[in-house]
Amino acid sequence: MTVRQQERQGPGDTPPEELDRLMAAAAQAARVLVGARPADRAGWLEHLATRLDAAAEELVPLAARETHLGVDRLRGELKRTTFQLRLFAEILRDGSFLQATIDHADPAWPMGPRPDLRRMLRPIGPVAAYAASNFPFAFSVAGGDTASALAAGCPMLLKANPSHPELSAATGVHVSGALGEAGAPDGIFAVVMGFETGIALVTDARIRAASFTGSLRGGRALFDLAVSRPEPIPFYGELGSVNPAFVTPDAGVQRADEVATGFVDSMSLGNGQFCTKPGLLFVPTDSGLEERVAALAGERPAAPMLSEHISSGYFEALERLVDRPGVRVIAGGVNPEGDPAPTILATTVSDLLADPEALTQECFGPAALVVSYRSADELLAAAGVFEGQLTATIHSTGREHVTSALLDVLTERVGRVVWNGWPTGVSVTYAQHHGGPYPATTSVQTTSVGTAAIDRFLRPVTYQDAPDDVLPPALQEANPWRLPRRVDGVLQSV
Amino acid sequence: MTVRQQERQGPGDTPPEELDRLMAAAAQAARVLVGARPADRAGWLEHLATRLDAAAEELVPLAARETHLGVDRLRGELKRTTFQLRLFAEILRDGSFLQATIDHADPAWPMGPRPDLRRMLRPIGPVAAYAASNFPFAFSVAGGDTASALAAGCPMLLKANPSHPELSAATGVHVSGALGEAGAPDGIFAVVMGFETGIALVTDARIRAASFTGSLRGGRALFDLAVSRPEPIPFYGELGSVNPAFVTPDAGVQRADEVATGFVDSMSLGNGQFCTKPGLLFVPTDSGLEERVAALAGERPAAPMLSEHISSGYFEALERLVDRPGVRVIAGGVNPEGDPAPTILATTVSDLLADPEALTQECFGPAALVVSYRSADELLAAAGVFEGQLTATIHSTGREHVTSALLDVLTERVGRVVWNGWPTGVSVTYAQHHGGPYPATTSVQTTSVGTAAIDRFLRPVTYQDAPDDVLPPALQEANPWRLPRRVDGVLQSV
Repeated sequence: MTVRQQERQGPGDTPPEELDRLMAAAAQAARVLVGARPADRAGWLEHLATRLDAAAEELVPLAARETHLGVDRLRGELKRTTFQLRLFAEILRDGSFLQATIDHADPAWPMGPRPDLRRMLRPIGPVAAYAASNFPFAFSVAGGDTASALAAGCPMLLKANPSHPELSAATGVHVSGALGEAGAPDGIFAVVMGFETGIALVTDARIRAASFTGSLRGGRALFDLAVSRPEPIPFYGELGSVNPAFVTPDAGVQRADEVATGFVDSMSLGNGQFCTKPGLLFVPTDSGLEERVAALAGERPAAPMLSEHISSGYFEALERLVDRPGVRVIAGGVNPEGDPAPTILATTVSDLLADPEALTQECFGPAALVVSYRSADELLAAAGVFEGQLTATIHSTGREHVTSALLDVLTERVGRVVWNGWPTGVSVTYAQHHGGPYPATTSVQTTSVGTAAIDRFLRPVTYQDAPDDVLPPALQEANPWRLPRRVDGVLQSV
Repeated sequence: MTVRQQERQGPGDTPPEELDRLMAAAAQAARVLVGARPADRAGWLEHLATRLDAAAEELVPLAARETHLGVDRLRGELKRTTFQLRLFAEILRDGSFLQATIDHADPAWPMGPRPDLRRMLRPIGPVAAYAASNFPFAFSVAGGDTASALAAGCPMLLKANPSHPELSAATGVHVSGALGEAGAPDGIFAVVMGFETGIALVTDARIRAASFTGSLRGGRALFDLAVSRPEPIPFYGELGSVNPAFVTPDAGVQRADEVATGFVDSMSLGNGQFCTKPGLLFVPTDSGLEERVAALAGERPAAPMLSEHISSGYFEALERLVDRPGVRVIAGGVNPEGDPAPTILATTVSDLLADPEALTQECFGPAALVVSYRSADELLAAAGVFEGQLTATIHSTGREHVTSALLDVLTERVGRVVWNGWPTGVSVTYAQHHGGPYPATTSVQTTSVGTAAIDRFLRPVTYQDAPDDVLPPALQEANPWRLPRRVDGVLQSV
């Protein structure tokens, strides 16, 4: 251990020798998991969901104590978490995720005789995941990364978030316990802790992919390590987003109530500690929306943040925003001595366009910027300044010319477009996409929420002219697992 | 322009101001292409295929002069190239590639009311591709990267390979011409040239993805540039592979003729200048295969390589191999003054295991190493030394215990397993996978050959609660394009 490692290793950190043992066990488990039936893995996930549901009375109070999030919210989040495990179990039983594809030998194939080729996805290998602070269940120890990696057949080393260590350890006991009870191989899952542990994970040759939810700075640093390895690995980082929302002129008149109430609800939900918090709201000047939003936000109470660290980061970011020319505080404010109250800043598109980088920075907490525009051209110019985003929102009556141009500009730079609604409350479904161009994520083609999240942890392999008895069941001629497959170019359902 | 740029810029290189103009045009074309119907793009590809077929008498002799490859091989490669364009047209008409997924709003969704969510893939944006030297048609100007990027709806700036500049320019005229004739937008395609041009491409913010086929050194350098950008982009590099082949004890007896003949045919095909050339053959000691392979290879004539540069690189790599302890030359040899003749080296597994890194290096050209093993344990130990490979080959009677263990070890580190055949001659099909773990590629989850190659140039976007009339046709309720879609979790064919 270097001096630097000793300095940065805190109490409770996973010792290097223990981490090495866990990585060796994960590598061993990966070889066993390649042969595990998807239906068996489905059973493991369902058993885990059942056990976590049964542990709510233990886990929710622990989470509330460590995160200051409300018990109702945390119960809902645990429900989301176990639902997610069950939905991946369904995906495993359906089997489409394997993308089994069979091309029979064809002597008449136009480019020349075709051999028998059979392709499917297989697990990528041991995965490291870095848990988020703000979803102590759904993006943490038993969260979406764990659910999708286990579903894919990958062992997982889960780096706990330092803001809820006790909950992480307790949840880890249930995950490992449930997997063991259900018959999963040893080494399939472990919770690890510590800053240096996180670095050791992403740089270890046995780790084949990594996923991360957190800050731009931390995520980019880990991404840089992942891609600088002798053997680079995929790094799925979700780094931040300001999720701009745009109110068209008609909607500013006809949907003013829904917009003002919905926006304040969404930006203050979870005390603004969501990656999908709408951080900017573009409103027609003189629509009165600025004042309505300020009035509604001013009624909301202050609340404690997830941690001291996050609270001080929030106030620093807020102060930087407040100090910019043309920015006014119209509700709440900078109050680093106490808990933050919902805070609304206001500016104009011309001030935003004069300083777009500073005014579109994420401020993780209950603050948002209302930006007034004077014309459709200003609205479109403002939409064009954003870097990659997880989401953008349009409030529109749908009858305005500007809407379609706005949609084009936004779709180019976001992963999800929300219509007359709000981006918080990311549903776990088949069609969900929680991702987006950099810096929203480091991996523009993948999602960390929804069933497509499993794709991150799979890679293809093709067998050429292999006899049926050496092929994996998914590719055997008789289709013993009754999978949907593409055969000679044609999708065949079962 | 810096002094270094001036030094490295050769005659015919694309001037920086011209490159800038082409990139701006590509960015503009990308916005038009997002709205182009897949069926229209299919028509463009088919028209391009027709025009290239009609230009065979112009292009094939040009290719033969610049590459020293035979006219028959080049005709076959052009046929493969135009077939590939037509196959992508089929994929576009089928529409599955869009992965259209619709979840209707569901108030009873177990984790809480679900909004209407609709996801599809859309073009990633302008793509840079770096053409290969060894396939002047199929991995060059109108090759697989161009076909799959255009199919995806992405504009393409194609960096020509310096070993066939005239063919590249001539092919580029046909590609641009055909696309224009067929109605594709301006700016959709251009051929660019020069070393510095290649660097400018991958570092330009307007380029959203890059693909490359070539050397480990060049590919890793470009990969490093791609991932170090302020906004990192996906980089699909195919960097090299030695494609080991393993002959089990039974097969060494029962398939000796096929193995010896097939191996020499495959390793000397195209003068050994294939990324899928089998570079190592593991044979049972005393099977006589070493001698048979040497005898057959010794009868093959010498032939010129693609370029002086490749020829000198080949002889340097070969010399390094020959100099290793325990390596014997049993056919051909190092003859840097003339054209290379098929060359067979021989060693044993114990010598290989003593120096695995040196003895498993790619030697791009008509050389291969026959490695004798004495036991199943030695065979498995040897299989375990390889880094990521495009392919591995097993020759087996299928009745041997070692086969299944061998398959497990190999599947862990390769993209395609070939059974009782040879890895050269990569068919373009639905189930093909031409990829593999690093250093075979920089992107373990993607393929550069086969219909799945289109996935590299697409990214998802989800629409939440968007009214039908602002949705892209692929996601509209009435399914006007008659696409296969997943609706509320269930795959629906049409």
